[in-house]
Amino acid sequence: MRDLPTRRPGELAIELPPQSDAGLIFIGRIHTPWRERSACPKNVHEARERGQTAEIIVDPRYAPALDGLEAFTHVWVIYWMDRAARDLVQQWPRHLSAPRGTFSLRSPVRPNPIAIAACSLLKRDGNRLTVLGVDCLDGTPLIDLKPYFTSTDSLPEAGKSIS
Amino acid sequence: MRDLPTRRPGELAIELPPQSDAGLIFIGRIHTPWRERSACPKNVHEARERGQTAEIIVDPRYAPALDGLEAFTHVWVIYWMDRAARDLVQQWPRHLSAPRGTFSLRSPVRPNPIAIAACSLLKRDGNRLTVLGVDCLDGTPLIDLKPYFTSTDSLPEAGKSIS
Repeated sequence: MRDLPTRRPGELAIELPPQSDAGLIFIGRIHTPWRERSACPKNVHEARERGQTAEIIVDPRYAPALDGLEAFTHVWVIYWMDRAARDLVQQWPRHLSAPRGTFSLRSPVRPNPIAIAACSLLKRDGNRLTVLGVDCLDGTPLIDLKPYFTSTDSLPEAGKSIS
Repeated sequence: MRDLPTRRPGELAIELPPQSDAGLIFIGRIHTPWRERSACPKNVHEARERGQTAEIIVDPRYAPALDGLEAFTHVWVIYWMDRAARDLVQQWPRHLSAPRGTFSLRSPVRPNPIAIAACSLLKRDGNRLTVLGVDCLDGTPLIDLKPYFTSTDSLPEAGKSIS
């Protein structure tokens, strides 16, 4: 299933450690309209603009952990981009004029391919959530959900200090 | 090292799956002034108010992935709360009047104890970053860094739809 990228100019790959340090549990799956990478929105912003919602099905074992989440208008959907390569420390996205370090990008390709998406929570029905604001492939594994707190998560003053 | 919580009223524990589904790599460590849980700030907000900064040391293997991050005023620091229990799906924090589902809380105790902290990036010196806004124990494993994008991450309108 691993989708190794074609090596392109500006990319720098490393050898990853042979063993992992901790284990993740998949707690559900995210169902989206997109079966191929080329069909996915470019980013979360485009997903919102398209207005295409996603259904999150939480494994019944974890369903009691959802109680109270419906009180929030927005939630963090945290997922594991299981088809992304993990070995690039520098990349050259098409929209940039020079290569950049992976941690300065929101690319799925990173040592731990974790995505965080601030989503509108439209509906909860038992162990199913309807959200707006994810841009991932259909069937992507869910690893966490958290309420969005404006007091700590919303930083409208954030930006670039150097252009 | 696992710090099992005392079972308290309102807590609901589950049996976790015997095997994990994916492996995380620790990419560095976060160094904070706090060696015991009781010394940690209650949350990221309190960490900011105290003005106590943290040093992130990224493993040299991943240092090239930091290039370009210094251009951002704020970054997401994503870490693994390796001393938290993982088996509670409902909890009753002291400040709430009733138990709540784990996914409606920002508690460290959750099936995948991942924390996301929006931090001010104060300095980068090679593979060392100085940040303001984490509330974790000294030595906490780092699993990812991302730039903070106001366009997708800052939702000042987020809140509670139900009190």
